[in-house]
Amino acid sequence: MPFRVRAVILVAMSQRATVARSAEGAHSLPREYYADPAWLVRERQTLFQREWLLAAHVCDLPDTPCCHPVEVAGQPVLLVRQEDQSIQAFHNVCRHRGALLVDDPGGPCERGAITCPYHGWSFSLNGSLKGTPNMPGLTRAERDALGLLPIATRVWQGFVLIRFGHRSSRVDPLWDTVAAEIAPWGIETLVRTRRLTYQVQANWKLLFQNYSECYHCPLVHPALNRLTPYQASDNRFTAGLVLGGPMQLAEEVESMTSTSRRIADCLPGLSGPSCRTIVYFTIFPTFFLSLHPDFVLVHSLHPTAYDRTRVECDFYVHPSAASASDFEPAPAIEFWDVTNRQDWHVCERVQRGAASLAFQPGPYSDLESVVAAFDRHYLQSVTASR
Amino acid sequence: MPFRVRAVILVAMSQRATVARSAEGAHSLPREYYADPAWLVRERQTLFQREWLLAAHVCDLPDTPCCHPVEVAGQPVLLVRQEDQSIQAFHNVCRHRGALLVDDPGGPCERGAITCPYHGWSFSLNGSLKGTPNMPGLTRAERDALGLLPIATRVWQGFVLIRFGHRSSRVDPLWDTVAAEIAPWGIETLVRTRRLTYQVQANWKLLFQNYSECYHCPLVHPALNRLTPYQASDNRFTAGLVLGGPMQLAEEVESMTSTSRRIADCLPGLSGPSCRTIVYFTIFPTFFLSLHPDFVLVHSLHPTAYDRTRVECDFYVHPSAASASDFEPAPAIEFWDVTNRQDWHVCERVQRGAASLAFQPGPYSDLESVVAAFDRHYLQSVTASR
Amino acid sequence: MPFRVRAVILVAMSQRATVARSAEGAHSLPREYYADPAWLVRERQTLFQREWLLAAHVCDLPDTPCCHPVEVAGQPVLLVRQEDQSIQAFHNVCRHRGALLVDDPGGPCERGAITCPYHGWSFSLNGSLKGTPNMPGLTRAERDALGLLPIATRVWQGFVLIRFGHRSSRVDPLWDTVAAEIAPWGIETLVRTRRLTYQVQANWKLLFQNYSECYHCPLVHPALNRLTPYQASDNRFTAGLVLGGPMQLAEEVESMTSTSRRIADCLPGLSGPSCRTIVYFTIFPTFFLSLHPDFVLVHSLHPTAYDRTRVECDFYVHPSAASASDFEPAPAIEFWDVTNRQDWHVCERVQRGAASLAFQPGPYSDLESVVAAFDRHYLQSVTASR
Repeated sequence: MPFRVRAVILVAMSQRATVARSAEGAHSLPREYYADPAWLVRERQTLFQREWLLAAHVCDLPDTPCCHPVEVAGQPVLLVRQEDQSIQAFHNVCRHRGALLVDDPGGPCERGAITCPYHGWSFSLNGSLKGTPNMPGLTRAERDALGLLPIATRVWQGFVLIRFGHRSSRVDPLWDTVAAEIAPWGIETLVRTRRLTYQVQANWKLLFQNYSECYHCPLVHPALNRLTPYQASDNRFTAGLVLGGPMQLAEEVESMTSTSRRIADCLPGLSGPSCRTIVYFTIFPTFFLSLHPDFVLVHSLHPTAYDRTRVECDFYVHPSAASASDFEPAPAIEFWDVTNRQDWHVCERVQRGAASLAFQPGPYSDLESVVAAFDRHYLQSVTASR
Repeated sequence: MPFRVRAVILVAMSQRATVARSAEGAHSLPREYYADPAWLVRERQTLFQREWLLAAHVCDLPDTPCCHPVEVAGQPVLLVRQEDQSIQAFHNVCRHRGALLVDDPGGPCERGAITCPYHGWSFSLNGSLKGTPNMPGLTRAERDALGLLPIATRVWQGFVLIRFGHRSSRVDPLWDTVAAEIAPWGIETLVRTRRLTYQVQANWKLLFQNYSECYHCPLVHPALNRLTPYQASDNRFTAGLVLGGPMQLAEEVESMTSTSRRIADCLPGLSGPSCRTIVYFTIFPTFFLSLHPDFVLVHSLHPTAYDRTRVECDFYVHPSAASASDFEPAPAIEFWDVTNRQDWHVCERVQRGAASLAFQPGPYSDLESVVAAFDRHYLQSVTASR
Repeated sequence: MPFRVRAVILVAMSQRATVARSAEGAHSLPREYYADPAWLVRERQTLFQREWLLAAHVCDLPDTPCCHPVEVAGQPVLLVRQEDQSIQAFHNVCRHRGALLVDDPGGPCERGAITCPYHGWSFSLNGSLKGTPNMPGLTRAERDALGLLPIATRVWQGFVLIRFGHRSSRVDPLWDTVAAEIAPWGIETLVRTRRLTYQVQANWKLLFQNYSECYHCPLVHPALNRLTPYQASDNRFTAGLVLGGPMQLAEEVESMTSTSRRIADCLPGLSGPSCRTIVYFTIFPTFFLSLHPDFVLVHSLHPTAYDRTRVECDFYVHPSAASASDFEPAPAIEFWDVTNRQDWHVCERVQRGAASLAFQPGPYSDLESVVAAFDRHYLQSVTASR
């Protein structure tokens, strides 16, 4: 969806902010980034290996121990809650013949082991090889080398993040900066009340770029634009891993819902001004956070082809709200489902136009400075050595 | 469908015609032209850029001004009727972020402007950039460079033709020669009464080759062969851009319909012998004209994959016939729908056979001299520099 | 499905058998063999050209003369029963324009000729060009060169085998060895009572490997494992073209059916011990033979994409059983349909896991020695010159 603007209604604007908001003459990316199937292959081998990717929320692994299979960037992944409560990701692939180990989202890790349904090889929750029926000859060293392949994992603000590649152990300091910004929402304590899933016929980058500006809001989202006028925004983060910032709710508007009323009380960590803004952050490459006074919206992009993206859109609320007998999230879900579909429609139009042999990148407006910032960060990431 | 034959029932035949009809030992094209996906990519970059392609009929743009989006050779195109009645084609792609500008076939050009639904950029009917909301910084030179990208356009005998490439401005003199031949049908005055659309699982060239001979008519089209016996044909054009010629209607037959009666009076420009023939012309690469005494049939090929072709089959009649209260085009539509399907079936069989690793080009008969002429012109066009 | 095991219940085991059963530390094939579309292209050009492939059973060509179209390794093939009762395979492609000649499985060869439905070219049953309507100019030499393209054909134990490539005329002596082993089943006298067809979302090699071991039987096929316990097996052939051997039926079990009773008498050539075993042979690359006391099961693999395989599973019985008024093959069909689906499910899981960028080949157990033997023979065949 929305944002980032030369905020005409904000009177005072520092020189620095002006620079940060400018697209500085940048143009959109050339045709091949959207229309060439080979490009996604390259992205899978580079940036989707290098970057921390959203895999789940802690509420997906409620019990100790438990397993949760997910697909991230096209790779089968198994998240395992360990006995010590920590969460570790593994490739969801048996080390014997390569069968997918767990495919049922509710699949249990029975008796502390993950057992392959093909030949019965089993693994401890920590990934170590446990049982190999009918293979008496394996040496200790061989067994030690045949544990599940681990994936770098960390929990950040309630989200389970994973990174496939091994090279760098450095974590961008922006993660900490943003964590401090979003701590009041207490996302690690929230529960998911609904997941919407979409199949969009557009390259994933078009969805990212679309979310990164509200220049399109007046025409594409007239209802949204009434709740948060597109000029009433600010860019808190303007370069690198994290981009975005707050938009002000119009007077009389409580939240982004079809009734413009909240679906629950303000989250307990929020107060005063925080209850009057929506904060939109993108975390490169496929994770969007939309913080509302009463709920948190998360978009997660899953590229399935150069011109296809599966989108999961999750609604998180406070457990006390979710358990209330009169809880009704429909106004929030309806509002965002309509808004999402408006976005996918224009993204699909750009996919069709950008695939034209005649397509030429056009200039960005200052309202699209964050789109330009995405492009710059993307080009850096996709061309960096793995 | 039909034609081109050593016309055994035509008594006198010049030496030149004999030569022209001979396939001269030519063989059909090798397997890769039909079975290699890379070949269509090359064709899109060469011949579909170089050649004039059928985009619409003037009856698709009745009002002044109006817009008509079409897809030609896989590219999104916007045809615009200008205030001065002329028609100009543009790439149907916004110069800002590349969104498809107009997708509704009935989409109006409101208030003399074409407005992108994404961020509201607008263009005059002549393509010049008109409005760019929230982009005060664009210079005059920048704005001048951001008009819609025009495509070479001309109207020929009521058909709107476009050419994507820019190199040559030369127009083959055969267009004028053929125009004189078909002028009596007055196609620019006709209206479309029906469009049939087909998805054929065959390479577009197989459809062209199939239309270029009536050697297959006895076995594939027994009903058609009764109306126009396959030997009763002549080849008016035997090399280059335009190929084909007339076939004689059998006695007692008025037109190619399921009743063998005409669905309307002879077109006003026709008289005598013209009312007793069907004239079949192909215009390279994807435009077939089938001129009947009472209606004009147009096939337009749209390659969508190396082994898939969308075919649009349009029926044009005189407006006085179309507006008559008892007008009934069904006999013509039925007849040609049956004939089309017979053709697509054999084309799909050739696609399957020609994709065999064992396929070897076979020799053409004299009845297939026009197929050989197509092959020669095709090879010249696809290998010429763009 | 099943087999090959360090046969713990067989007391005496020669040193040679022990070695033959060992996987000798081999690992499964790397990811690209299953997940790279280019690999199937290479396989089609090499091993599927070099090897003898199952095309039909003699019961498919009952009459003299008759035609039987099949698709083998993606190529259209026409089997023709000649006047002298012999069977000859041809490419099912007309030598004129390449149309598929015969597509109806019940298509007759009328009046001793195969006639193309496009332009009427006709061929004798021996493939020679017979009729070319409207092509008087063809010379004798040209006509001689335009017969149907023959494919090497032989009938082996009632099966019609073909080989596309021409290089070697050598036939592996293992064919004769196996023929002697299976002669008692008299397969050339049997008739097909049912064909099951499956579309499996897995590379064809995963299906071959899965059939080559019964290590998976306890977990994947609990019912089958009760009829033929996985340890009660022996490997008769342990390297090269043919692999496999017998499994012993458990006490009280008559055959592999849902009732564990036979669906017919023991085949007339069998007696004593042969009536107490199931013999499983694979014949490289796509032909599996499962010999039961009362019926013969044949699996034939048809790779349609790197991750898609069509499987035909045929049930052959004695004609006297098939013609009995109370013949009921359902218990056999049900049993194998369930078993097949269990196999396809695990093969599809391996396809998903082996396509993971993280997949690493794992070690084979001794129970998978025949899988390792397949891998070795496969690598030899796919890398050999055509």
